Amino acid sequence: MIVILYAHPYPDRSRANRALLRSVEDLPYVSVRSLYDLYPDFAIDVEAEQRALADASAVVLQHPMYWYSVPGLLKLWFDKVLARGWAYGDGGDALADKRCLWVTTTGAPESGFSPEGMHGHSFHAFVPAIEQTVRFCKMRWEEPLVLHGAHRVDDERIAELARSYRARLEALAGATGGAP
Amino acid sequence: MIVILYAHPYPDRSRANRALLRSVEDLPYVSVRSLYDLYPDFAIDVEAEQRALADASAVVLQHPMYWYSVPGLLKLWFDKVLARGWAYGDGGDALADKRCLWVTTTGAPESGFSPEGMHGHSFHAFVPAIEQTVRFCKMRWEEPLVLHGAHRVDDERIAELARSYRARLEALAGATGGAP
Repeated sequence: MIVILYAHPYPDRSRANRALLRSVEDLPYVSVRSLYDLYPDFAIDVEAEQRALADASAVVLQHPMYWYSVPGLLKLWFDKVLARGWAYGDGGDALADKRCLWVTTTGAPESGFSPEGMHGHSFHAFVPAIEQTVRFCKMRWEEPLVLHGAHRVDDERIAELARSYRARLEALAGATGGAP
Repeated sequence: MIVILYAHPYPDRSRANRALLRSVEDLPYVSVRSLYDLYPDFAIDVEAEQRALADASAVVLQHPMYWYSVPGLLKLWFDKVLARGWAYGDGGDALADKRCLWVTTTGAPESGFSPEGMHGHSFHAFVPAIEQTVRFCKMRWEEPLVLHGAHRVDDERIAELARSYRARLEALAGATGGAP
């Protein structure tokens, strides 16, 4: 089972993320948890979340970038669900060796991510907090899928990334025995 | 006026952050907004938050690091309060030229923040997302105050940082005309 943690604060306004999600959600070994639908009141059910991940062979974090990071609800999910003794620390092995794929979109084109650009840094500067969260829980960090300029890219570029996304999940399922 | 946005999910468990806050909250030009007290249900009052910042000459972000970033509620605060047309984008000048001081604590000692350490990176690797959020809103980024190893440092080290914190706010008030 591959669990997709989908965190889009405004699913109705999403173009790229929705298309990406649609391209993979029919895979029989994929389970989507749409966090903003599950927890509109931010009252995350920690036990349910931990249970949902227990049998997963791989975890996908899919979200648009908000302020150079994950949206607030996914950050809260990190704070609550990735608990000491479960995800890290003594006895905290629940996620160990699961593969983790980060799938994210940015509004600005990639050219905005440079020392001279509007975001002042290359995109890589914003990766460590996410990657290290994953690694601290002893998951395996997979090469991320990133779509820049999601507000303006054409449909073909989105479709291309959607195909890559599907292929990546198929490969993950094969590699981890997650396929039926 | 200097507004401190204080984001500690478990104020009762805090040792370092509480001591730091106590060392400055009596300053007459300081206003503390304890976000987890104000919004235990995560229903941030965006207009109230924006109003509270309108007259501030400086803004302090004070919080313990959670998963290499701000706690979930402060991240949600970024997502909601730092709106296009208010904090950035066309007409988004509400925070322009205000000074912003980041005051944060980490549980692990600084030695954990290295390529060989438990956190895999130097602490600097986790700064860009915070700093760039501030800069994108055209605030002036001040040299941060960071206390590593907050779980284990002795009281004298905390007191020393508390004195620095107070001195920094006094200087900010003088520099920005925030003092009465």
